[in-house]
Amino acid sequence: MNSTMEKPYVVGIDIGGTNTVFGIVDARGTIVATSSIKTGAYADVNDYVDEVCKHLLPLIIANGGVERIKGIGIGAPNGNYYSGTIEFAPNLPWKGVIPLANMFEERLGIPTALTNDANAAAIGEMTYGAARGMKDFIMITLGTGVGSGIVVNGQMVYGHDGFAGELGHTIIRRENGRVCGCGRRGCLETYCSATGVARTAREFLTARTEPSLLRSIPAENITSKDVYDAAVKGDKLAQDIFEFTGTLLGEALADFIAFSSPEAIVLFGGLAKSGDYIIKPVQKAIDENVLNIYKGKTKLLISELKDADAAVLGASALGWELKEVK
Amino acid sequence: MNSTMEKPYVVGIDIGGTNTVFGIVDARGTIVATSSIKTGAYADVNDYVDEVCKHLLPLIIANGGVERIKGIGIGAPNGNYYSGTIEFAPNLPWKGVIPLANMFEERLGIPTALTNDANAAAIGEMTYGAARGMKDFIMITLGTGVGSGIVVNGQMVYGHDGFAGELGHTIIRRENGRVCGCGRRGCLETYCSATGVARTAREFLTARTEPSLLRSIPAENITSKDVYDAAVKGDKLAQDIFEFTGTLLGEALADFIAFSSPEAIVLFGGLAKSGDYIIKPVQKAIDENVLNIYKGKTKLLISELKDADAAVLGASALGWELKEVK
Repeated sequence: MNSTMEKPYVVGIDIGGTNTVFGIVDARGTIVATSSIKTGAYADVNDYVDEVCKHLLPLIIANGGVERIKGIGIGAPNGNYYSGTIEFAPNLPWKGVIPLANMFEERLGIPTALTNDANAAAIGEMTYGAARGMKDFIMITLGTGVGSGIVVNGQMVYGHDGFAGELGHTIIRRENGRVCGCGRRGCLETYCSATGVARTAREFLTARTEPSLLRSIPAENITSKDVYDAAVKGDKLAQDIFEFTGTLLGEALADFIAFSSPEAIVLFGGLAKSGDYIIKPVQKAIDENVLNIYKGKTKLLISELKDADAAVLGASALGWELKEVK
Repeated sequence: MNSTMEKPYVVGIDIGGTNTVFGIVDARGTIVATSSIKTGAYADVNDYVDEVCKHLLPLIIANGGVERIKGIGIGAPNGNYYSGTIEFAPNLPWKGVIPLANMFEERLGIPTALTNDANAAAIGEMTYGAARGMKDFIMITLGTGVGSGIVVNGQMVYGHDGFAGELGHTIIRRENGRVCGCGRRGCLETYCSATGVARTAREFLTARTEPSLLRSIPAENITSKDVYDAAVKGDKLAQDIFEFTGTLLGEALADFIAFSSPEAIVLFGGLAKSGDYIIKPVQKAIDENVLNIYKGKTKLLISELKDADAAVLGASALGWELKEVK
């Protein structure tokens, strides 16, 4: 009897600034049970972990008990895989270094691992999604920010300190770069995140005079979704915003390819769903900017995980790698 | 009896455009015998391999015979580790794809591996040099060009095709970047190689009017060595050239850190020996440009391998990883 038969499930916990979503997942990536709580409602992290366990345990028991769970994987902002801690996460209520993996392990007696959300997404993609069977790929998450998870030789790249893979904070504009939340200027995520698309919209609307559907929206309220909707309706300015965004992203990806020569780059998140409006200029910029020896080799893929499930699936995938609690 | 005692030696072969240097190396990194031939003298690669073997075999026999050699490692431009081939190397006499590792393996009956020169340097540094015991580091070779070898989780990053780690060809200037030998513009190596330093010297001498020791040298003949010599003599313009070079390199390294969060970056080659003139601005630019979470963590080191020996040592280090010929 192999271990998947003995322990057919893993638990995935995705910790976001607003919600914590968790679920029980089988080896094929089916979420067999799921629930959620509000992250922000628990000022004390002990109360928070207790509350997650209170909701999670009945689900576990309904699916055969803790002995059927191979491991728990947690995806969290500023999550460190090596230490199992969340460290100084600006959007979470708990300050300092929080030993979250240990706290779950102690309460439930199930081996628990933790990593940041983009790494979890990469592991999810490798386990259940578009990167199945790949040993070298880069996951780029295009959300409020730009995150990344890098897999080399079939292993996550955590770096010497557990914090590797912050490609959203590589600097793509050294002159007059946009101010980034990290305190520096010109980071990739100031241009190629959903927020970056909205910034570009405001810049284009100011710099250009042509009519646009976007002019009917107060500039401060424009979202990347508005830009997408306008682009679909044939709005030239909106389409140019995607062209600009995709070009900058493709230029950056061409440099990432020179690092790890991945079999694929997998794009995830809202922007990645904007289809050809974003993918075409990304692909064009990669082709035009990549070093000769890499030309035409790295596939550009869209995540195959459903948006609603991806975070929990990604986190859960970490659980398959775990050994018994020591 | 462990395998190092049974097979106490490896062979390193460094293939350069001008010379091929090879040697027998022990586990402590001592070169016990060495010789060389002219690479360019053999239009047929079969003649070339025969000639290397003709010079190498007596050295092997003098040190106990082929059964005492654990493996042969080859460092070569455009070398591909996965296939053991040299592919379309512009500076070597043989065109197309050359199965060099197999050719040596067949002739000598010793397992043979091959990689590009920068990867070989990284493996050498990990085995015998400044990166001993490190699992995550980046080697940057500053020579005629800029090469790189990346180690993640204790393994070389070869990528899905064997060609990963061309950080010298990441684009650091998108506007008006210098033309690169690769056909693109703005590559790191057009600024931070020895050739790049000479180009900067010519640019600075044209753009500025102040006196400089470098003005006594015909502009086309200026080398990075001339710039170093002038800097040592207190020449302000020469010192500014290093400042400029180091700043651009440090900015690029700060982005590389966001990729793999290495324990160290090891600089190798002539420029790396220019001491504080180059190291200080590199370190300053890293400190000023690196993302907060990495600040002060990644060590900046100079290679500990002697210039003359480094290429052969690096190549030889590959030999320790080899298993018996299949």
